[in-house]
Order: sequence, then structure tokens, then C-alpha cells
Amino acid sequence: MQLRIPGPTPVPEEILGAQTKQMINHRGKEFTALIRKITEQLKGCFQTKGDVLILTASGTAGMEAAVVNTLSPGDPVLAVTIGAFGERFADIAQRYGADVRRLAFEWGHPADPEAIRGALKAAPDIRAVLVTHNETSTGVTNDLESISKVVKEFDKLILVDAVSSIGSIDLPTDRWQCDVVVTGSQKGWMTPPGLSMVSMNERAWQAYDKAKMPRFYLDLGKARKFYDEKGQTPWTPAVSTFYAMSAALDMIEKETLPKIFERHSRTARAAREGVKSLGLKLFPQEAYASNTVTAIHGPDGVDVKKLLQILREDHGVVLSGGQGKLEGKIFRIGHLGWVSEADIEEVVKAVEAALPGARA
Amino acid sequence: MQLRIPGPTPVPEEILGAQTKQMINHRGKEFTALIRKITEQLKGCFQTKGDVLILTASGTAGMEAAVVNTLSPGDPVLAVTIGAFGERFADIAQRYGADVRRLAFEWGHPADPEAIRGALKAAPDIRAVLVTHNETSTGVTNDLESISKVVKEFDKLILVDAVSSIGSIDLPTDRWQCDVVVTGSQKGWMTPPGLSMVSMNERAWQAYDKAKMPRFYLDLGKARKFYDEKGQTPWTPAVSTFYAMSAALDMIEKETLPKIFERHSRTARAAREGVKSLGLKLFPQEAYASNTVTAIHGPDGVDVKKLLQILREDHGVVLSGGQGKLEGKIFRIGHLGWVSEADIEEVVKAVEAALPGARA
Repeated sequence: MQLRIPGPTPVPEEILGAQTKQMINHRGKEFTALIRKITEQLKGCFQTKGDVLILTASGTAGMEAAVVNTLSPGDPVLAVTIGAFGERFADIAQRYGADVRRLAFEWGHPADPEAIRGALKAAPDIRAVLVTHNETSTGVTNDLESISKVVKEFDKLILVDAVSSIGSIDLPTDRWQCDVVVTGSQKGWMTPPGLSMVSMNERAWQAYDKAKMPRFYLDLGKARKFYDEKGQTPWTPAVSTFYAMSAALDMIEKETLPKIFERHSRTARAAREGVKSLGLKLFPQEAYASNTVTAIHGPDGVDVKKLLQILREDHGVVLSGGQGKLEGKIFRIGHLGWVSEADIEEVVKAVEAALPGARA
Repeated sequence: MQLRIPGPTPVPEEILGAQTKQMINHRGKEFTALIRKITEQLKGCFQTKGDVLILTASGTAGMEAAVVNTLSPGDPVLAVTIGAFGERFADIAQRYGADVRRLAFEWGHPADPEAIRGALKAAPDIRAVLVTHNETSTGVTNDLESISKVVKEFDKLILVDAVSSIGSIDLPTDRWQCDVVVTGSQKGWMTPPGLSMVSMNERAWQAYDKAKMPRFYLDLGKARKFYDEKGQTPWTPAVSTFYAMSAALDMIEKETLPKIFERHSRTARAAREGVKSLGLKLFPQEAYASNTVTAIHGPDGVDVKKLLQILREDHGVVLSGGQGKLEGKIFRIGHLGWVSEADIEEVVKAVEAALPGARA
């Protein structure tokens, strides 16, 4: 079975196996050693000297943590959205009472830094910008470096949903001045779902001190205090998933980040070239096509749902459909984490074989 | 190594092993079958015909979910507290703006239903009562049946922290009219931490419809909608922990609830009799001593921290100290989930052997 959705991603046997270690006291020395090791490795992957906190929860909770730990109800925020996950980030802020102004771009297109500059110029009261690095729903990677530069011209806080990018696509957190960056264990990290990792820099902690949105389980200040003072988490951590993450980070360290980014770039190219060679069209603007997920137009006359079913049942290849308004219109190949060009070549062959049966 | 803290609890090999199954699509049929099976089994264990929702998060998040899904800022609530976890429940409600009135009982004692009746009579504006079934910090089990009866005389909502009780100590959710009941996978469920399970009855859903506290990741209405309509969770679930939970629930079903409650009762008695036979004193009133955790006074002249260290390092027995104001004053033996009388007899022997070395 080839599971090629944009998460959960396949987990190498040795990482799955790491989960079979017996439970330990999460208030004991052994756990402290484990979380300190993982946290230091994560800081390396995030390319940050700031804090990285690990939450027992999935990526959406990490996005919520980014919002509630830095903002207050009524705060004007600019939510840059290019797809379903950008909308989700905006929805979270709205739910907690932020004054959300959405700057939406056509799905399949990246955000235009110039338009962001215009929006920030027009609304000097904006306190923070919410932005998706890699939009999983459309297969688009934003030019985060340029976007962040613009945000920093106006000295605003930037909160980044990097759930499906960091660790697979280069995101130098400190160099790009990203104040809060969020990811989830089941993406490029080759780890089962259940952990969300969130970085906070000094600027973010300053915002934390003033932030009035309610929070308890997702209180990052409490997480930092427990980590700094005791090497613990405030609430019981997902111990098995910590074991898995530790094994995964060792593999990542061994391969090295530059080689991982390069592998994702090659694999994504194989996906794009492969589907184009079948006469299929990419959904996103190709210059901004993601290195972790490829979104493809369902060709005329093809029932996308049926295509996915044939792939799954006859070829053992599991791909994703479209989300929200793209349901039935596109399909998506996830290629992040434990994946090679050879895997993707197999997927493309399976798509080729499955297409005729999916024509109406 | 004997891990005898009140969670994480030891996990049987076959349940640890269940985690090594490869990832699956959380939007596919196989996951739907898995979550439907687990949910039905959990309803049996909760003894409810209501809903049981599974959150990827630990027990504290479940407590937060109970609060934010049923209450609005400004709502007067009665928080019955008999220890650290009762205080935590009250703190959560306070953080989200509830008007929290604490009814605190001396640590080591249970809540007095008569006092609750008095408090409810004196404050007819109370909307909900927060109560701990089993207070892990003091080793006390409240008489929840009587407490719930009093709460229902006044027709108030009751939110129950049953994190360390349900599944190990009888809690017939529907019969006792408990509107919201919360637990966590790492307690009696013999599963690694990372999931919280929350039941909601019709009364709780009526409260949900009016509740205005902000929520996104912990939105139980969204969880119900995804479960009912698709057999999915709104956000990526901790797939490996679901596998483990499924294996654990099969073991629980095989043993049967009455036998599990009986085993916990016997094991707790072994703990209490064992430590008393060493001349040690129980911290709680014995009539209310918990069947899942035994709290013991640190005897005069014994350094509790040192005792725990000797137990851990020389005898391979991991116990817990006291929390909050009980730190250094008591120690606690967890006996829930995968535990037998023989295990506890070994623990008692180790305590006996370790005591002399811990005397100052």
C-alpha cells in the first residue's frame, strides 16, 4: 500500500517500532532527557534560537495556539488566505474575537507580497499577519521570505502555518523573522499524528505578555515555564509519539536538512513531470507548485472520486481528493517525509493505469 | 520496572505492539470503521446512550472541552474542589471568564453533598457544577451518585472530571445523570497518553447550543458532526493511539466491566492494607479512599523524595510524590489499568525495603 496523501504520511518501520517502548513517568528524569533532546533537534530543523514547544495535539491546535498566545479579542489582523488552510487560520482568529480582515487570493495562486504591502499601508492598525507557508489544499507554496519582509517593513507580528512545509521545505525561521511557526508530527516529520510543534521568538513572547485571548491547555507560556524549569510539559504528553519523534529526528539529522529539502524538490519534480506526461494539468501556477503536495485538475470526462477508488482498490495507492470547493475537481499526491522519486514514479504509473476506468 | 504512578500507566505488550501498524488515510473507510468500533465500545464503558467524542489531546484538554462547550463568559458556576485537579477544573472555567464560586473541602476529604445542596440553595443563579469524581492528587473518590442527585434536584448541569476513574471505578453516566464526563487514554484504559474521551448527553448539547465561550480545536459540536456524518474527526487524529485504544478496548470487553471494577477494588485494598501493615498512614479518609490511587503520609523522619529515589533506583518501582501543597508530604501509588494484587504486593515489599534508607 502506498499512502500518498499530505498526511498522515508513511512512517518508517523503525519509527513505528520506537513506539513499543513501555511508558515512563512524564515527571521523571528519563522523560526530561527525551524532551530536551527532541526540542534541541527541532530547534535545528526550525533554524531558530527561539523556543520550540511541543503540544500533545494536532496541527490545528498549533495554529490555535499561535493565535491565542499572541492576540487579544478585538485585535485587527490581516489573514492572507490562498486556500482552505488559510481560511481555517482566519476562522480560528475570528472565533476568538479578533477583527479579521481577509486578503484572499484565487485558489491555485500564491499570495502577492505587493498586495499585502497595500493592505498593511491601508490599515495601520493591523497587529499581526496570519499566513500559510505551504497551502496543502491547493498545492501552492507562498514566497514566505518576501511576505515576511513586507510584514516586517511595517513592524507587524507574523504567524506562520508551516504545518506541511517546515522540515521538508526550507524555512529559516530566524533569518526570515517568522515570529510564530507551527507544524505537525504527521507531515514531513515521518511521525504518527498527535504532536504539534510551535516556535516562538522574543517578539512573539512580547505579544504573549499582552495577549488576552483565553487559553489553558494551549498556553505556550506555561509550556515554556515547565520546559525551562523542569524539562517537562504542563499536561501529560503523548509519550509513545515522543519516542517516535525522537527516532525520526535522528533519521532527519543523519540525512541532513539540505539533502532532505533537495530530495523533496526532486520528488515533487518527478510528480509534476509525471502527471504532465500523462496529459494532466497542474492545479497551481507551476512556479509556486509545492514540494510537498501536488494538486492536479481532474481531467474532463474523468470522475475524480472513481479515479481515487480505482487507485486505492486496484493499485494500492491512496491519494487525496480536493477539499471544500475543490471536492471532485482536483486530486492531490502527497510527497513529504518518507518518500523517494521511485515511490512517486510508481504512483504516476498507477494513475496512468487507473485513468481509463475512471472515464464516464 | 514497575511504573505505579496514576498515569501514564503500564501498557500491555500487545497494545504497545498495536501501535506499529502503518498509517492510514484518516479520511478513508478503514479509519471510519476503527473510530466507529472504538466509539461504540467507549459508550459501553461510559454506560451511556449519549455521545462519546475522542479528542487528540490529553485529559486537561478534555476538561477544557467540557467547560468551553457548555458555558458562556459570565456564567456563574459552582466548582467543587477537593484537591489539585478540582482546582484545575475551576481554573479552566475562570480562564474562560466564568463566574467561578469555589466550594473547597479539606484535602484528603470528599465533598459533602449537603454542603453542595446549601451552596446551590444559596445561589440559584448557578448554571453548572464542576466536580471531580476521583481526585488523583489526594487519592479520594467522591460520592458522585449523591452529588449528582443533589445537582439534579436543582436542575443544574453537572460536568464531571472522571479522568482517573471511569473504566476503573463504576460510573454509570446515564443512570447518574452526568451531563459531561471526561477521561484520558493513559489512565485505566491501558493506552498511551494522547487521547481524551468526553461524553455529552442531550442536556449537555442543549447547553452547547447556547454556550458562547470560544473554541475551535476542542469544538465538540464539530466533532459530533464529523463523527455522525462521516465517521471522522474534524482534525487529524492520533492514528497510532487509536490503534492502541482499539486493542485495549478489546481486552476490556473480554475481562468485562464488573470484573475490572472488582479487580481495582481488590488491588486498592491490597495497597491500603499493605501500607498500613508497614505502619504507614493513609492520607485520605479511608471510607473515601480511591480504588485507582492510594495516597500515603510521608512518615515522620522520612524524606519522601529520597524514598521515591531509592524505590526507583534500587527497586525499580516508580511511584509519585505529592502535588502542589502536598509536595514532599505524601507519596502515591497508582493502581489502575493493567495492574494486579501481586503487582501491588511487590510494590509494598519494595516500600518496606526502601523505608530505612530514607530516614534522615
